[in-house]
Amino acid sequence: MKQTMWKTTIRPAFNDIDAFVHINNCRLPVWFELAREPVFSLFTPDLAENLVELPLIVARVTVDYLAQMTIGHDVEIHTHIRKIGRTSLTTYQEAYQKGVLSVKGDCVLVHFDYDNEKAAPIPPPVAEELRKHMIDPDNPNLKTRSGRFPAVS
Amino acid sequence: MKQTMWKTTIRPAFNDIDAFVHINNCRLPVWFELAREPVFSLFTPDLAENLVELPLIVARVTVDYLAQMTIGHDVEIHTHIRKIGRTSLTTYQEAYQKGVLSVKGDCVLVHFDYDNEKAAPIPPPVAEELRKHMIDPDNPNLKTRSGRFPAVS
Amino acid sequence: MKQTMWKTTIRPAFNDIDAFVHINNCRLPVWFELAREPVFSLFTPDLAENLVELPLIVARVTVDYLAQMTIGHDVEIHTHIRKIGRTSLTTYQEAYQKGVLSVKGDCVLVHFDYDNEKAAPIPPPVAEELRKHMIDPDNPNLKTRSGRFPAVS
Amino acid sequence: MKQTMWKTTIRPAFNDIDAFVHINNCRLPVWFELAREPVFSLFTPDLAENLVELPLIVARVTVDYLAQMTIGHDVEIHTHIRKIGRTSLTTYQEAYQKGVLSVKGDCVLVHFDYDNEKAAPIPPPVAEELRKHMIDPDNPNLKTRSGRFPAVS
Repeated sequence: MKQTMWKTTIRPAFNDIDAFVHINNCRLPVWFELAREPVFSLFTPDLAENLVELPLIVARVTVDYLAQMTIGHDVEIHTHIRKIGRTSLTTYQEAYQKGVLSVKGDCVLVHFDYDNEKAAPIPPPVAEELRKHMIDPDNPNLKTRSGRFPAVS
Repeated sequence: MKQTMWKTTIRPAFNDIDAFVHINNCRLPVWFELAREPVFSLFTPDLAENLVELPLIVARVTVDYLAQMTIGHDVEIHTHIRKIGRTSLTTYQEAYQKGVLSVKGDCVLVHFDYDNEKAAPIPPPVAEELRKHMIDPDNPNLKTRSGRFPAVS
Repeated sequence: MKQTMWKTTIRPAFNDIDAFVHINNCRLPVWFELAREPVFSLFTPDLAENLVELPLIVARVTVDYLAQMTIGHDVEIHTHIRKIGRTSLTTYQEAYQKGVLSVKGDCVLVHFDYDNEKAAPIPPPVAEELRKHMIDPDNPNLKTRSGRFPAVS
Repeated sequence: MKQTMWKTTIRPAFNDIDAFVHINNCRLPVWFELAREPVFSLFTPDLAENLVELPLIVARVTVDYLAQMTIGHDVEIHTHIRKIGRTSLTTYQEAYQKGVLSVKGDCVLVHFDYDNEKAAPIPPPVAEELRKHMIDPDNPNLKTRSGRFPAVS
C-alpha cells in the first residue's frame, strides 16, 4: 500500500531571520508544530473550535539542522508518522527549501486523559488513520547523519 | 574538582503562554539558546559587539518535557557541558520552575571555520574552560526517563 | 486610475494562540512586517540575497484590534501605501479572517543612508511604484473607529 | 504626590536579533506586554493562577522606535498610566538600554465583561491604584518627536 505524508508550506518572515541572516534554529520547532495540525485533527476534529480539548502532550522534540535556510523562498514541510505506541506516537518531519532537505525532526506526543491525569490508549480508528502516514522505512533521509556537515550559505 | 554550571533566570511573558495556559513547548529552545550565551562568550568575547563572528552552528537540539510550566514564577535554567569533541560540543540544560525540573535538553554545537567552510578544532584554552562546566555524570536527572509521565497542572 | 494593493496569506500556527485561545496581539506586527516585503523589494530587489542592504528603518508602528482571530482559518493581509514623504513612507495594512476586518495598522518607514547615517530621499522611481499602491481615500475602513468595540468570539 | 512607575528588566536573547544585528522591532510589543503584568494584576490578583479570567482586551498599540537596541545589555522598561477612562485605560511605556530611551509606546486596554460581551466600567478601587502610576505630564519624553531621527549603531 502506498503511504502518504502531509505537506505544509511556510513562508519565512523577516522576523524569522537572525544575526547570521539565516532562519533562526528556534523557528523550526514552531513550524513543525504548525505542520502537525493534521495529526492533531485526527484526535480533535474541528480543531479550530475545540483547540483546548486536544488530548496530546509534547513529550520530546528532536531537531537536526542539515543546511541553512533563508527568506525569499517557501519552506515545504513533510510530516510522517514514525511510530505508533499504545499511548503515544512519534512524528518524523522534514523541511525543504529550494528542494534541499534542510532540517528534520522527531516529536513524541502522548495521548493524555486530562480527567484521570494519565496517558490513555490511542483510539483504534485514530491509529488506523495514523498508520496510513507511516514513513517508508527505506526513506534515505532516515539515514542522513545529523549535524555532521552543516552547510553554510 | 568541583564542577560549576551557568545559571540564567527567565521571566515568562504572557505571550509565551498557549491555549492550554502553559508555556508553549516552542519557547524552551529559545530560552535554552539564551542560556547558552556564556558558552558563546568563550568563543567570542565581547559577544554583543561581535555577534556575527560567533563561530558556532547549531547541529542538533533535543528537548524533553517533564512537567508543565506557567507564568507568574521565574524559570531558572542550568547550563552544563555534556561532551567536548574535537570540533563540536554538547550542552546539557535543565529548566526549573518552583524547584521542579520541568524541561531538559541537549544541544550539539559545531565549531565552524566560515572562511574554509568546514568544522574546525575547538581551541585548547576554550576546551579547558568548557571542561570546568562538565556535568557531573552522577547527576540523577541524566537518568530521568524523558517524556514518560508528563505532569499536568 | 485603479489603485492596487499587495495581498499576503498567513496560516496561523498553534504557537500563535494565547491563553484566551485567540491569536496573540503581538503576532500582528510580525505578520504585517512579513506582508511589507513587496515594499522592501522596491528598495532592495533580490531581497532574499541582499537583506542586510535594506535601507528602511521602522520608526513607528500603530495597530488597531477590531475583532479576535483564531487558528483554523487563513488570515489575509492587504498592504497599501498611505503616505509618501520626502524620506519616509507610511503603509496601511488590514488583516481579514473569514472576511472580517480584524486588525489594521500603520507603519512609518524611514529611508536611511547608512553610510552618512541620515535619512535619505526616496528615489523617484521607487516613489512612482509606491504611488500605484496608495490607499483609496474613500476606503471606509480608514474611518473605522479603532479599539472601540473589540469583538469577542 | 509623588507618582510611581513599574519597572521590568528584560534580558535580550539571541533569537530577538534580526538580520541588522539589532533587536527586531516586533519584540517590543511582546516586552511591553510582559511589563504590563502589574496592571493586569490589579484587575486579576493571583494572575498566574487566573490568567484566563483577565478582563482586559488590547484595543490599540502604538510603538515609536527612537534608537536601535542590541543584545549584551539588559533592557529596562518603565510602565506608567497615561489615561484612565470609564471603561478603558492607556499605558505609556519606555524601554531603555544603557540609559538611552530607545523605544516608547502606548497601549489602550478595554475592561471587558465577557458574560455580557461589552465594555465594563473600571472598578473604582482599581482606578485609584492606577492613578498612583499616572505619568508626570512634564515628562520630557512625552514630547520626543517620534521616529524622526532613528539612531543607527
